[in-house]
Amino acid sequence: MPNWRCSMETNILDNVLAQMRNALKQKEIQHAVAILQSLRLPDQAELLGELNNDEQVRLLPRLSPAESADILEEMDEEDAAELAAALPATAVISIVEEMAPDEAADLLGDMDPIQAEAILAGLENPEEVRPLLLHSDDSAGGLMTSEFLVLRQQMTAAEALHTIHNWKPGAEMIYYLFVVDQHGRLCGVVNLRQLIVAEPETLIMNIMDTEVISVPTGTDQEECARLMTRYDLLALPVVDENNRLLGVITFDDITDVLEDEATEDIQRLGGAQPLDRAYLSTGVFTIARKRIGWLMLLFITESLTGSVLRFFEDELQAVVALSFFIPLLIGTGGNAGSQTTSTIIRALAVGDIDKKDVARTFWHEIRTGALLGVVMGIVAFVRARIWGSPNTLAITVSIAILTIVIWANALGAILPLLAAKLRIDPTVVSGPAMSTLVDATGLFIYFQVARMILKL
Amino acid sequence: MPNWRCSMETNILDNVLAQMRNALKQKEIQHAVAILQSLRLPDQAELLGELNNDEQVRLLPRLSPAESADILEEMDEEDAAELAAALPATAVISIVEEMAPDEAADLLGDMDPIQAEAILAGLENPEEVRPLLLHSDDSAGGLMTSEFLVLRQQMTAAEALHTIHNWKPGAEMIYYLFVVDQHGRLCGVVNLRQLIVAEPETLIMNIMDTEVISVPTGTDQEECARLMTRYDLLALPVVDENNRLLGVITFDDITDVLEDEATEDIQRLGGAQPLDRAYLSTGVFTIARKRIGWLMLLFITESLTGSVLRFFEDELQAVVALSFFIPLLIGTGGNAGSQTTSTIIRALAVGDIDKKDVARTFWHEIRTGALLGVVMGIVAFVRARIWGSPNTLAITVSIAILTIVIWANALGAILPLLAAKLRIDPTVVSGPAMSTLVDATGLFIYFQVARMILKL
Repeated sequence: MPNWRCSMETNILDNVLAQMRNALKQKEIQHAVAILQSLRLPDQAELLGELNNDEQVRLLPRLSPAESADILEEMDEEDAAELAAALPATAVISIVEEMAPDEAADLLGDMDPIQAEAILAGLENPEEVRPLLLHSDDSAGGLMTSEFLVLRQQMTAAEALHTIHNWKPGAEMIYYLFVVDQHGRLCGVVNLRQLIVAEPETLIMNIMDTEVISVPTGTDQEECARLMTRYDLLALPVVDENNRLLGVITFDDITDVLEDEATEDIQRLGGAQPLDRAYLSTGVFTIARKRIGWLMLLFITESLTGSVLRFFEDELQAVVALSFFIPLLIGTGGNAGSQTTSTIIRALAVGDIDKKDVARTFWHEIRTGALLGVVMGIVAFVRARIWGSPNTLAITVSIAILTIVIWANALGAILPLLAAKLRIDPTVVSGPAMSTLVDATGLFIYFQVARMILKL
Repeated sequence: MPNWRCSMETNILDNVLAQMRNALKQKEIQHAVAILQSLRLPDQAELLGELNNDEQVRLLPRLSPAESADILEEMDEEDAAELAAALPATAVISIVEEMAPDEAADLLGDMDPIQAEAILAGLENPEEVRPLLLHSDDSAGGLMTSEFLVLRQQMTAAEALHTIHNWKPGAEMIYYLFVVDQHGRLCGVVNLRQLIVAEPETLIMNIMDTEVISVPTGTDQEECARLMTRYDLLALPVVDENNRLLGVITFDDITDVLEDEATEDIQRLGGAQPLDRAYLSTGVFTIARKRIGWLMLLFITESLTGSVLRFFEDELQAVVALSFFIPLLIGTGGNAGSQTTSTIIRALAVGDIDKKDVARTFWHEIRTGALLGVVMGIVAFVRARIWGSPNTLAITVSIAILTIVIWANALGAILPLLAAKLRIDPTVVSGPAMSTLVDATGLFIYFQVARMILKL
């Protein structure tokens, strides 16, 4: 996903940023506002995010509350909360009034609770937002909006279109319309296409789809994203235990979830806990904290490797040349394991394999490992001979590498699947974890092979 | 993205699969068809994909061509092409007739060219599909459909809605409607919401947005996905060099692109070339081929580490205990580097940092490295003393680890940004590549520190 390719676009934004900073410095605030207003919304949010807090606070009150609301909704959640905290409460109240309830709840949830309460108290309809604050940010309840239009079964298609015409909903809310009974229980869905294509006098109950996919409020956001992607849904209704419609998750919230989840997986595979916000906005202490746990655990495990070396001290003393191949052997093992584990973890995440596929996956990787091991074994033999090692040592190295690669592939295939079976996130089997595991065990294999072949 | 959590759902599909297999074995094909028809489309495609080729070929002709077309569009592209190749040409022709032109082109593009040509020749309108075959699968031209409805500027909103009512377009085609002039040049876009919300007599030219985001046919699919995600677009128009509208990319194609791109990044970060299709459908030889290149290159680089060891042979002979800490030191360095590089690469991909942020990123990681290095240095000192190493050796190890962690963080931050500047995909700096680089350089640092402190 190469944002780094879009150099032209970035350069344009850089230029605009320089112009804006210049205008602000010269106190030409009206000019700065005009520049901002000439941009598309996502670009406005990015640009405002690049300004410092002081510049933001001077600029934002010059926009209308509706414009400010749009920009805050588009910004990084934590950045938006920081900016809102720096504005006067009355300004924030009129901005929040313009926000969709789910976005307002997200913003208030990220602010200091006392400030948030003061703003809530100033709203015209705080009861639209308050219940949404109870849901966790990464659950269906936290993603949904409570502002939606419902249809009734006895309406005609023409009446439904007329209702929509008068309601003038937001763009992301209009494509799916949910049908409820007199108790507010979800009983069907029609999409806008069906309403337009249908003959005007058709009753909703005759075109609606009654098998609606819905989720309870507590559903994890990943599961919501997975359902919407799998079934190509533009909106997903959220219901309570009595199937009453509480809110709707729309497609624009889901692409962000998908991106965040892939980011978390990649950071975990690199052997670190995921960061909660954008990289450069995360402090050095926080980044270090997210990494130190794994680094320490791997350090302790890696001590094992030292112990293995101490255990084979006599063999090392006898044939010092054995030590030259240590980095080569454990390095290759770690690399093969890391290749395997990242492939398997991603295949699990996208559903290409399933935790019941243990045997097939294991067999797949054993054979891949054997193929790779034979090739690497031959190369290692040649390499050892070029270094002037005797034939017996060269054979030791090449048999060790064959065994280690098969072992690393088997481990890389089995461990993530085992984690999944135990309902642990398979990304715990990160690349670094694999290298560390293979280091100790690989050395053990190496010295065992050396003992046998070199008769130590 | 935990597909592994949805055990219940998977179990249901497993049950249905068992029922279907049973029905097929007992020659109750009508029953098997009924089971298939009771499912939602993505589940139908998954289930059919689980059957073997023989079972598929018996089942598919019992469905209507339209049903078959929907299922083939939903299946993995390579699996669909394999299945189509096994069906009689006449059956395939009537199925392809029911497909959207972009999907038909995808299917034919994955089939044997001679078979594909025979099917094209049998189609009613081969000229709808043929031009699409010229575009690469992963470009805008390969993603777009050539079947779309255009509006004219002088139409009213009511006339536009009437046109759409009569045209009855597919669900993914209806939300954005593009406006062209008499030469077919793109001059605006209206979404369905605007048409419904507008007063019926409003002219299209008065509600359309004239600043349309469009791409040329050659645009990479990642760039298309990035634009649609950033601007929350449900459709992206594709134009020729004269701004004539050639086709439209719809949102349902884009979630797949996003998923595929994240998969490729993760596989590359694990140190392997990405696979073109689902893991278990990829043969062992292909998987090995995708991995051997990196494994070999890293092996050669890792030989350097052996050379560093040989270079310091005298020091090793003098203090054998130095060798016990080798795995610990280079392991920790590799892990720290791998943590950094995965964070930086993902931050680049999602646009959190930019290749112009080199200095800030470098400084961020130097400080993080210093923090982590101090903590790890203290732990290493304690560890060395527990192993009974003398104070001087323990100090050597802890200074070495501090230096190595800072070095690994700096390298992990700079290399991906450098790759991006050189317009190379930053994922070349995979976890395995980082470990291997840090192995050789880390050892060098270790022995230099040892020389100074132990006065070797």
